[in-house]
Amino acid sequence: MLEKLFQVINRIERLNMVSMHQMRRSVNNLTKPLGSLGRLEEIAVRLAGITGSVQPSVDKKAIVVMCGDHGVVQEGVSAYPQEVTGLMMANFIRRSAAVNVLAQQAGAEVQVIDVGTLLTDLPEGVVRRKVRPGTANMAQGPAMTKQEAVAAIHVGMDTAYELADKGIEVIGLGEMGIGNTTPSSAMTAVFTNHPVEQITGRGTGIDDEALAAKTKVIERAIEVNQPDPGDAVDVLAKVGGLEIAGLAGVIMGAAARRVPVVIDGVITGAAALAACRIEPRCRDYLFASHLSVEPAHRIVLDELGLKPLLHLDMRLGEGTGAALALPVIESAVQLVSRMATFEDLGIPSPAPEEDEFSLAVDGLK
Amino acid sequence: MLEKLFQVINRIERLNMVSMHQMRRSVNNLTKPLGSLGRLEEIAVRLAGITGSVQPSVDKKAIVVMCGDHGVVQEGVSAYPQEVTGLMMANFIRRSAAVNVLAQQAGAEVQVIDVGTLLTDLPEGVVRRKVRPGTANMAQGPAMTKQEAVAAIHVGMDTAYELADKGIEVIGLGEMGIGNTTPSSAMTAVFTNHPVEQITGRGTGIDDEALAAKTKVIERAIEVNQPDPGDAVDVLAKVGGLEIAGLAGVIMGAAARRVPVVIDGVITGAAALAACRIEPRCRDYLFASHLSVEPAHRIVLDELGLKPLLHLDMRLGEGTGAALALPVIESAVQLVSRMATFEDLGIPSPAPEEDEFSLAVDGLK
Repeated sequence: MLEKLFQVINRIERLNMVSMHQMRRSVNNLTKPLGSLGRLEEIAVRLAGITGSVQPSVDKKAIVVMCGDHGVVQEGVSAYPQEVTGLMMANFIRRSAAVNVLAQQAGAEVQVIDVGTLLTDLPEGVVRRKVRPGTANMAQGPAMTKQEAVAAIHVGMDTAYELADKGIEVIGLGEMGIGNTTPSSAMTAVFTNHPVEQITGRGTGIDDEALAAKTKVIERAIEVNQPDPGDAVDVLAKVGGLEIAGLAGVIMGAAARRVPVVIDGVITGAAALAACRIEPRCRDYLFASHLSVEPAHRIVLDELGLKPLLHLDMRLGEGTGAALALPVIESAVQLVSRMATFEDLGIPSPAPEEDEFSLAVDGLK
Repeated sequence: MLEKLFQVINRIERLNMVSMHQMRRSVNNLTKPLGSLGRLEEIAVRLAGITGSVQPSVDKKAIVVMCGDHGVVQEGVSAYPQEVTGLMMANFIRRSAAVNVLAQQAGAEVQVIDVGTLLTDLPEGVVRRKVRPGTANMAQGPAMTKQEAVAAIHVGMDTAYELADKGIEVIGLGEMGIGNTTPSSAMTAVFTNHPVEQITGRGTGIDDEALAAKTKVIERAIEVNQPDPGDAVDVLAKVGGLEIAGLAGVIMGAAARRVPVVIDGVITGAAALAACRIEPRCRDYLFASHLSVEPAHRIVLDELGLKPLLHLDMRLGEGTGAALALPVIESAVQLVSRMATFEDLGIPSPAPEEDEFSLAVDGLK
């Protein structure tokens, strides 16, 4: 299993600089002041670098919703009981959750994957890839073994490969797992070295007292487990979650297949941190969708050097932010393929000289 | 003419509080943590208040692109020659400008209206409502007479009424007019009392020297004309523009007909400031789409108490930001009409008690 993991990681390449250079030139010739489409121009250039094509397509879209349960819920870190994970999975399958509505509007299919929920009676339509039924309570010991974390990463890699095989051109990340802002905050604290209290938020809506308790639980989990920030699999195993490891796997698998990935809130953000610690080039394949109200989110995005497109004060997860950003990313592609050029209009192009260039990828810090 | 203007203004009503209250209750019963859809919830509630319906629709969409030329261009305030206004209008009609691409993606029609360009040979498809061929140079005297400003406002009001008559449910604002960040900055300085140098930006992309000159031109225009901030028509006439007055008219007309309006960048923002000075209730009918890189934009949005949905570092105008925001606004409506409720799932609703309420409209400062 480890060999397969290493093969996928080894396959993650640098963005195609020739395609990016050509796309920047195309964008500069569109009938608009230089740079005036801002972030949409950066998106078009990066999609060219990711796909290696000056006519990238993000027409075929999928949202992957990784699901898992969390033993740490017994510490009282969530406003909801653990059964809600299963109820929401049923809701996804019935297509009546927020992510379904938004994915349909964006023209994206939704794939719901059980990487590790407590649910035994899974609704028809859920992809069955359970590694174990929920994590152990990380406040008392490791959430799972490293082998289990690697198995969960594999579920994600397989998912990305399957989606790439069937022609999916962009993947949005989503998740469901009552309690999962707790491991996400722990992972973010370990990876970024920020104090836990700066990172911990109210999740689905806990009060001041519960927030203070949640912060203490996270501090205890880190203290008890001593995860090694230099070994992202160790962090995922000790203070992570099965769906979070799965999401990290989707990112690495998608990057290996040169498929762009749109992250969502703090949970998918923690998965992105893990994937980028394993292979920093993963970052170039990521787009940030929205800025959540969870305090960890800005820290995660700053660490990744990504800027969110939407500011909607959301904190729902499921992939809702990713679904909302898909049409914005598609707009960038549409503009490049359909706008008139200066030549079309008989206006001299204001494009700068060939020798003005930068090796920095637009929009990435 | 003035009587008609006053009739429209008198018709602008307060948002429907009953519908907003009912919508808030519906939103709280959707299967998600309370408030977790953030700004999308605020949008749904406000659309209920605007339309007076708990099942509002924004299915039928239009982008209105008001076009005008500016005498102040002879002061060298723009990077582009004045002929580009006409070339871009032809581009809009050919559907190959940025706004066309984005409007089509959003499912919105684009209406191009000549309120006051220099163009005599208008392309087929442009709505002909020219009040005068371009403004006078505001650095030397008033841009136009108050009668002309009122006539341009009427063009916008008529446009909004015509669109409402044919069933349009949301209007995005756009504009074209080489030089029009100059009058917009002047208007914003007059209305908000910020120093001109804090407000003036690079527009389509002028250099440091031209920016300093542009700032001086705006200061001179205000000095020469002494517009009265208490009389928005005086401000529009002396340091405004024909398309800007037209846009203010669209806002007032749409508000009178209870149609939501999505503003774009600094030019539509200056028009919104004028409309809201004439009738402050206009503000409740407005949605901010994106945050432009033009420094005046944040000042305008703060003054209006509106928060932008998208952060894309754009500075193109045309209605591009408004077009990009339309799908986000539509998402809010879709979520309310299509998500499952807690009752559907057999989970007790976490909705707060009836007696917890606020008279403040969500999302408006």
